[in-house]
Amino acid sequence: MAAWARAVRGLLLDVSGVLYDSGGEGGGVPIAGSVEAVRRIKAAGLKLQFCTNETQATREKFVKKLQGMGFDISMAEVTAPAPAACRILKERSLRPHLLVHNDLVPEFAEIDKTNPNCVVIGDAAENFTYANLNEAFRVLIGMEKPVLISLGRGRYYKETDGLKLDVGAYMKALEYACDVEAEVVGKPAKMFFESALAEMGVPPQQAIMIGDDIVSDVGGAQRCGMRALQVRTGKYRQEVNGSSSSSSSPNSRRQPRTLKDTEVMLRGSGAACERWKHLFFRAISWLLSCTAPLGDNRLKQARN
Amino acid sequence: MAAWARAVRGLLLDVSGVLYDSGGEGGGVPIAGSVEAVRRIKAAGLKLQFCTNETQATREKFVKKLQGMGFDISMAEVTAPAPAACRILKERSLRPHLLVHNDLVPEFAEIDKTNPNCVVIGDAAENFTYANLNEAFRVLIGMEKPVLISLGRGRYYKETDGLKLDVGAYMKALEYACDVEAEVVGKPAKMFFESALAEMGVPPQQAIMIGDDIVSDVGGAQRCGMRALQVRTGKYRQEVNGSSSSSSSPNSRRQPRTLKDTEVMLRGSGAACERWKHLFFRAISWLLSCTAPLGDNRLKQARN
Repeated sequence: MAAWARAVRGLLLDVSGVLYDSGGEGGGVPIAGSVEAVRRIKAAGLKLQFCTNETQATREKFVKKLQGMGFDISMAEVTAPAPAACRILKERSLRPHLLVHNDLVPEFAEIDKTNPNCVVIGDAAENFTYANLNEAFRVLIGMEKPVLISLGRGRYYKETDGLKLDVGAYMKALEYACDVEAEVVGKPAKMFFESALAEMGVPPQQAIMIGDDIVSDVGGAQRCGMRALQVRTGKYRQEVNGSSSSSSSPNSRRQPRTLKDTEVMLRGSGAACERWKHLFFRAISWLLSCTAPLGDNRLKQARN
Repeated sequence: MAAWARAVRGLLLDVSGVLYDSGGEGGGVPIAGSVEAVRRIKAAGLKLQFCTNETQATREKFVKKLQGMGFDISMAEVTAPAPAACRILKERSLRPHLLVHNDLVPEFAEIDKTNPNCVVIGDAAENFTYANLNEAFRVLIGMEKPVLISLGRGRYYKETDGLKLDVGAYMKALEYACDVEAEVVGKPAKMFFESALAEMGVPPQQAIMIGDDIVSDVGGAQRCGMRALQVRTGKYRQEVNGSSSSSSSPNSRRQPRTLKDTEVMLRGSGAACERWKHLFFRAISWLLSCTAPLGDNRLKQARN
């Protein structure tokens, strides 16, 4: 067993596409087995932080929605872009023009928004109207040095009724129109992962990130010095992730498909209670020996 | 007088921002002096082609609108992206999903649009809704090899009520989300300028492009072997175009600000009728000696 595996003390979990698929009237549906998997991970005594780029609601509403689905989750366990952005805005005396989801606006309640000197863009969904995007563009193009802060840079995500464009696509539109590079708050920014790790009090070498996004989750965590696993739920698309993940691959049966699979593999099925800890770390070691870190080429090829 | 100046036989004119500012109830307002300038250019016996990325209307409607403003313009004198795109679609048996302005749809009347195998995006304006952009994205992401055809790649343009995002911004959003590079039909594509020159029967060395866009008009024409002039109407923004264009520059008074100024300078004020042709070419020579071709650096710096 690798030395580092003995030392694993914390897990970072992506939320949308790992715990649940968002969208629909109830705000989404849990992915089979994920509620139980979170419960078991916590019962094993591991530190856990939910590391999400979700910006369609305040953390409070977001947590309540997940609790309503049965997840054992609290506000303090969630690392999200909006609070991180608020810290940056205060530090740099920036007054944002907001292009975000209506339900996220309360996160910025204490921020001065008069006479904007930057634009903050999040996953605004239905608020991504032609008029609203033009308004954000005019604020930016009117600045001597445009400042664009983006809450994530995701390309798309999966809702119950299909794939949807994420904030990254609209960020690119504004970047191009104003010839500016956005400052990204949220995954895959290194500072964002570091903030989640600090919340757990666990160094990167002792943590694993589990997500469905090959760039924002897996790539971002690896650049931060963590190990990472990609589940096959959410936005996972086989053709994007290369032949090594295909169902005909000898390795494919060893790779977790859902958070539930991951938790079961981590736990080690059939382990007696008294041997649980020992088998758990053996399972992690075995699992990660089959999951080589992703090379730069694969990351570049990945679309989402 | 430079040898090439003696040989100038044709002018390519951008339309929006040079002839008129679009937008508002009447569809736009002419820029002062531009109606008369077009009349005089034609009267001088020069070949003239209107080279536009306008995709908010069919050529027929577009020409009628401009005629209504008093411009001497006909269908055959307009080179626009939609007819060029239709030729490409037919040649390659492509069936488009259209994300364009409602008024442009008739241009594609003869194109098979069932079971789409590509997406054509134009300046859809109010049709750039979150739902419509998601729909175009889903069509693209569902293809094995996504084909995205963009009617221009402009960043923004000026309407009577201010600057508006152009098709290029939305093209970039889809490019990023689907990890695809769009095929651009329209300025600054070389083929587009060549098509306009062919329509006039004038080689690039004997033509001048006049526009307000430093990249699409000036850069595109120069890459095609033409000379180009940038007017200071439309989307022209002084801070984007460098200090050489500032009002304090010794050269600034020599540079044309509007199409009218350009035409007056080309014509040579006070020239007697019998000396008109001679003075006209002297004016072109003098004007262009003050307007060095733009280097790559300036093009890169330019935002629009």
